[in-house]
Amino acid sequence: MRSEEVLKSSISRFLYASPLTGMTMSEQWLDEIKWTDDGLVPAIAQDAETGEILMFAWMNRESLKLTAELGHAVYWSRSRGKLWHKGEESGHVQTVHDIRVDCDKDVVLIKIDQKGGIACHTGRRSCFFNQLDSGHWQSVAPVLKDPSEIYDK
Amino acid sequence: MRSEEVLKSSISRFLYASPLTGMTMSEQWLDEIKWTDDGLVPAIAQDAETGEILMFAWMNRESLKLTAELGHAVYWSRSRGKLWHKGEESGHVQTVHDIRVDCDKDVVLIKIDQKGGIACHTGRRSCFFNQLDSGHWQSVAPVLKDPSEIYDK
Repeated sequence: MRSEEVLKSSISRFLYASPLTGMTMSEQWLDEIKWTDDGLVPAIAQDAETGEILMFAWMNRESLKLTAELGHAVYWSRSRGKLWHKGEESGHVQTVHDIRVDCDKDVVLIKIDQKGGIACHTGRRSCFFNQLDSGHWQSVAPVLKDPSEIYDK
Repeated sequence: MRSEEVLKSSISRFLYASPLTGMTMSEQWLDEIKWTDDGLVPAIAQDAETGEILMFAWMNRESLKLTAELGHAVYWSRSRGKLWHKGEESGHVQTVHDIRVDCDKDVVLIKIDQKGGIACHTGRRSCFFNQLDSGHWQSVAPVLKDPSEIYDK
């Protein structure tokens, strides 16, 4: 029993280098996350400077680890079933300044700098542009760039 | 086929009064939400004034409807399997100023005023107090009130 714990601890303390922290890190912090049955955790991306919530996506263990290692946001695309380095198509990379987890350790918050100022695939700054107004969803933010210009390169 | 559409439309346009908007509202806006297979939607609560992200929880259709109707945050407690009027035990009610939904209409954002200044059950202002620092989660926010004082009334 004890040797199993030691083995588990040794595995979880596998070291890797992190540009975000400039230090080698154990994986204990990843073990502490309460992943869903599908191995995912919700992730909220917030503008590090203005506090604006820019988008919401999901991460698996590998994408959260890469986010910390690389210093840019990496999500898990549920629709495509693969890692999604934010900005890989659009160029709208998210530089990560701060990684948080909530009290229950089942939701991640990353504070980021949004390259190009556009986080949403619709060409808007934030994905949360639909406001409930008199019982209807109203778009309250402008399209800054036509999506066809963002993705058809 | 056409009469079915008319019927569906009539049902979805069932009217109710909303103190938040001061108008009667149809339920079309609720029909537009992309609920999970469990009938839920993730909800992010953000301080309406400072932009700080205070908590993350889930809503079902009834709780989101009540949130709009009553003007205070109502979540769905997955652990207790029932509606959760935030503050019902702690008194830490969340007054809702703005309800948003994202581009895919599968994540809700509410901008709120947090009564008592404490959103987290640990007695901290925000649930997102654990910061990744050198490969470890570090609490970076103070406990403002002992949870035993909040809940043992």
